[in-house]
Amino acid sequence: MRAAIFRNGEIVADTLPEPKPSAGQVLVRTLACGICGSDLHARKHAHRMVELARHFPGRKPMDLARDVVFGHEFCCEVLDYGPDSRRKFKAGTRVCSFPVLLMPDGPKGIGYSNDNVGGYAERMLLSEALLLEVPNGLAAEHAALTEPLAVGIHAVAKANLRGDEVPLVIGCGPVGLAVIAALKLKGLHPIVAADYSPARRALAEKLGADIVVDPARTQAFATWAEHAAMTPEQKAARSPLHAWLPALKPALIFECVGIPGLLQQVFEGAPRDARIVVVGVCMETDRSEPMLGIMKELNVQYVLGYTPEEFAYSLRLIAEGQVDAASLVTATVGIDGVAAAFDDLANPERHTKIIVEPWR
Amino acid sequence: MRAAIFRNGEIVADTLPEPKPSAGQVLVRTLACGICGSDLHARKHAHRMVELARHFPGRKPMDLARDVVFGHEFCCEVLDYGPDSRRKFKAGTRVCSFPVLLMPDGPKGIGYSNDNVGGYAERMLLSEALLLEVPNGLAAEHAALTEPLAVGIHAVAKANLRGDEVPLVIGCGPVGLAVIAALKLKGLHPIVAADYSPARRALAEKLGADIVVDPARTQAFATWAEHAAMTPEQKAARSPLHAWLPALKPALIFECVGIPGLLQQVFEGAPRDARIVVVGVCMETDRSEPMLGIMKELNVQYVLGYTPEEFAYSLRLIAEGQVDAASLVTATVGIDGVAAAFDDLANPERHTKIIVEPWR
Repeated sequence: MRAAIFRNGEIVADTLPEPKPSAGQVLVRTLACGICGSDLHARKHAHRMVELARHFPGRKPMDLARDVVFGHEFCCEVLDYGPDSRRKFKAGTRVCSFPVLLMPDGPKGIGYSNDNVGGYAERMLLSEALLLEVPNGLAAEHAALTEPLAVGIHAVAKANLRGDEVPLVIGCGPVGLAVIAALKLKGLHPIVAADYSPARRALAEKLGADIVVDPARTQAFATWAEHAAMTPEQKAARSPLHAWLPALKPALIFECVGIPGLLQQVFEGAPRDARIVVVGVCMETDRSEPMLGIMKELNVQYVLGYTPEEFAYSLRLIAEGQVDAASLVTATVGIDGVAAAFDDLANPERHTKIIVEPWR
Repeated sequence: MRAAIFRNGEIVADTLPEPKPSAGQVLVRTLACGICGSDLHARKHAHRMVELARHFPGRKPMDLARDVVFGHEFCCEVLDYGPDSRRKFKAGTRVCSFPVLLMPDGPKGIGYSNDNVGGYAERMLLSEALLLEVPNGLAAEHAALTEPLAVGIHAVAKANLRGDEVPLVIGCGPVGLAVIAALKLKGLHPIVAADYSPARRALAEKLGADIVVDPARTQAFATWAEHAAMTPEQKAARSPLHAWLPALKPALIFECVGIPGLLQQVFEGAPRDARIVVVGVCMETDRSEPMLGIMKELNVQYVLGYTPEEFAYSLRLIAEGQVDAASLVTATVGIDGVAAAFDDLANPERHTKIIVEPWR
């Protein structure tokens, strides 16, 4: 079969052996697979990923001398089953799946592995037990957005909302947009969002941001503060010892960029007692001033992934039209177009989410 | 009056003008004042403190060309009152105070200020409204431990205990010991504590640690894990998707060291979903691998100080003998001994808390 392969630090189109389903596995045809920012990071920082894997003894690191097929945001069509399957969904059924394979020695990731091919290939293997049927009529390229939406749903769940926070979303790429959509579902307003790109800011508004900020023109935290003023009642209820502090509602900041130095910028801009959810994936060593965290008593919650329940919920949200996932898709490419798509995604004005359709 | 003064980067004994109480202020005689690790940091990193102050527009940074008198862990005796005072406590009453002065333009810190002399001086000014009477019979050098104990009480309060965590306290200096005492009051067991110093480990046990670790011999997180195994019931209740993870109770890690690189060590050793409370004050730029935080979904709560309620509660705890504060005091010195005491505190075998008695 054909696939876009990560080989020697580059993405190349080539052929690979056909995958064969073992017990409990399903052979599927990949209909659509989103290119994730983490895949871009992985191409650039693959050695760091391997190096970091030593901290997780249960995980087998990628062998970068061997082929890897990325792609963990997929929607597929059932082709055939391996032994010991319940064959719950007939061939042709469109499915999504939490991107892991359940193996006898534990779950194994799909997409950053030498063994488990991701969605940039014509065919792949999934675990039958994890299949979710795509509700009728939902386009495969929109069902493939289940995974990035689940990232936002999870980030907001991990924030443990109390209901009185004013959120600030920094970075309106797919992750930031998913966070905005998840915040809108929670009814939290106003949602303030910042991005240098006009196209991304327009999308942020479409997905639910009430206020958008161009950090090149206005300091994001200053705009946030304008919209986070306490009510006179809240102000009156404060301790006299806090009377000298700005009268602001609690800050809930989502860092959705994931580059070195960004967290330090958040530490500098954040108001006292802010809670910061780090959703952006920074694979490089980072520097920060712990004293700022200490003096402001900041809380930093790092998040990754989602639960199976959050994943299933995200698919329902898209199918029911509660999240306008379609507006994220800016292009579709075949296997031969993946390498160029990786480069194209560097321009936020042109692209948000590029979908790979390996059958093209 | 005489004072141990921070001048040109050194601690020197010299005389200063007598302080004069303004409206609402009390002139007090300093009976005892603990030397805090932050004072040692401040001597070494004073320029960093000044530099960081630019992030807090309300705070006036120290002018390092002028004299500063450190000392914010004090117990004093009332001498006289300024105008507009209620004169609630008669002269000779022993008092503690939250270490700030309430000024018309907001609270101002005592101890890291050119204007408000700290407890390494014979006399100082306090705000009448913040005075707490020391319960009869409590020695001044033990009442002076109210402040460091409050740091531990606050850190544990900010941890939002659920009751199922197994705590690990890293570093058993005064801050770590205060955290251990606060955890013991919460009834959380076992309390695991790590320190390289045998004397500090013995104190940790005295204050309430159930298990002590010498990191030179055993990895602290490995020992923690031995004592954090889930019960069979907890293990059975886990999601099958988590069955491959070590069956450990939630980790609650208190970082009580405050040197660069320590947080990264905690990121490396911490189990998945750990909550980390940063109580140690690291004044230098720090480096860490955000990917470890992300992949483990760690939570980092930076903390500083305490509330007035926590401060008052800490004084009561010491007075009622609920916390064996006396065991922390390893020496008392006069003003002439402060400079040497700063150096002596580098040896954890010899010293934990040195109390300055400026009247000596």
